[in-house]
Amino acid sequence: MTTGVRRRMGVEERRQQLIGVALELFSRRSPDEVSIDEIAAAAGISRPLVYHYFPGKLSLYEAALKRAAEDLAARFAEPQDGPLGARLLRVMGRFFDFVDEHGPGFSALMRGGPAVPAGGTCSMSTASATCALIDSVRQAAYDQILSHLGVPDPPARLELVVRTWISLAESTALIWLDGRRVPRAELETQLVQDFAALVAVSAAHDEEMGALLRRALADEPADGPFRELAARLATLVPQGFQADAP
Amino acid sequence: MTTGVRRRMGVEERRQQLIGVALELFSRRSPDEVSIDEIAAAAGISRPLVYHYFPGKLSLYEAALKRAAEDLAARFAEPQDGPLGARLLRVMGRFFDFVDEHGPGFSALMRGGPAVPAGGTCSMSTASATCALIDSVRQAAYDQILSHLGVPDPPARLELVVRTWISLAESTALIWLDGRRVPRAELETQLVQDFAALVAVSAAHDEEMGALLRRALADEPADGPFRELAARLATLVPQGFQADAP
Repeated sequence: MTTGVRRRMGVEERRQQLIGVALELFSRRSPDEVSIDEIAAAAGISRPLVYHYFPGKLSLYEAALKRAAEDLAARFAEPQDGPLGARLLRVMGRFFDFVDEHGPGFSALMRGGPAVPAGGTCSMSTASATCALIDSVRQAAYDQILSHLGVPDPPARLELVVRTWISLAESTALIWLDGRRVPRAELETQLVQDFAALVAVSAAHDEEMGALLRRALADEPADGPFRELAARLATLVPQGFQADAP
Repeated sequence: MTTGVRRRMGVEERRQQLIGVALELFSRRSPDEVSIDEIAAAAGISRPLVYHYFPGKLSLYEAALKRAAEDLAARFAEPQDGPLGARLLRVMGRFFDFVDEHGPGFSALMRGGPAVPAGGTCSMSTASATCALIDSVRQAAYDQILSHLGVPDPPARLELVVRTWISLAESTALIWLDGRRVPRAELETQLVQDFAALVAVSAAHDEEMGALLRRALADEPADGPFRELAARLATLVPQGFQADAP
């Protein structure tokens, strides 16, 4: 259905185009700094026409955020084949791709985001759409990890380790974005090893976590990220103790 | 200065009393659920008199939050004597005391808090008083840790480890509050060991971090939390590899 030079878009198609344009702009600069005029110009339509599809910047921001959240959650999906460390490492690669593509928008979102209603967000009694989206992505990450570990009904200590590791991954990505002073490939491997390290620390207090750790490490290859860490720790930590101990 | 049965309070004294009463109420239930009427009743004064001292619940909440933030930051202060692990363990004990005392208020705050202005908070361009307070407490924790490590000008990797560990401590406390399913003493030790583990993982990638780790571990006693972890890992991780490896 083309009318002359420009094809006329259907309502849903136009909405999707605007969401894509907005997400692109919200990703490259802090969403607070992006105006509706700019979005209209980038989409090649008038400002009133933007308002025809979205009542305001907030609703467009929420739609863009929803697409970004679905995109990120989709990147967590990983076939359940091969060693666990390599699986998690591939997911970390896709996570940092996402963070890289949506840098300023990701930072603004994780620091509170502009889609925060008056009177509070993410507190227990006033859940906003934004908070619900962030929590849904965290939950998707959590579910994926438990599924790969093969533990559908996790003990409290495992839930704690997985959820706190997710917050560690978020803050690692945020700090990386602020200047990119450590190579992202190092941080991807580091986060995989951090996961193993946090499980190992918990396992030092609890036999159930110990059994889980041994099972998770069972099919790690010699050059996998877990084994590499264990080998390094085995030399590094005892050496540290021996070299400088009084 | 007593007038009959009840002593008349000065303005600043009354303000401080109201802040204390409000903090007590905000700590025991989600701040969204606490009304000005309730604060007035608990302080033994009329609702209009509360408004005489504070224009609204938000300003009273912010004052209570400020007192809580100063209280928490003060608990980070620790003499620079003895092994590092034991120092951090004492701070973790005081941190969990604080979290225990202010449970629901701490949860609500860390999930966004009610003191969030319309249009966003904690995003880079719209810092609210609440976000600034949370960030000031994180910064106080960060400064304390660097001061104990004796590294006033930290390399990027150390800054990353310390800041991400602080977010790990926050999320560990939040998850602990949600059901208290793991003993807090275990989590206090675990967080100290997590810190050493995150430094060790980073040290596996970087010699500067390795040197820092060796220095930090130099005066650890045999029964300190770092050495206990190293001993457990030395048995746990290699055993895990050997027992189940193909």
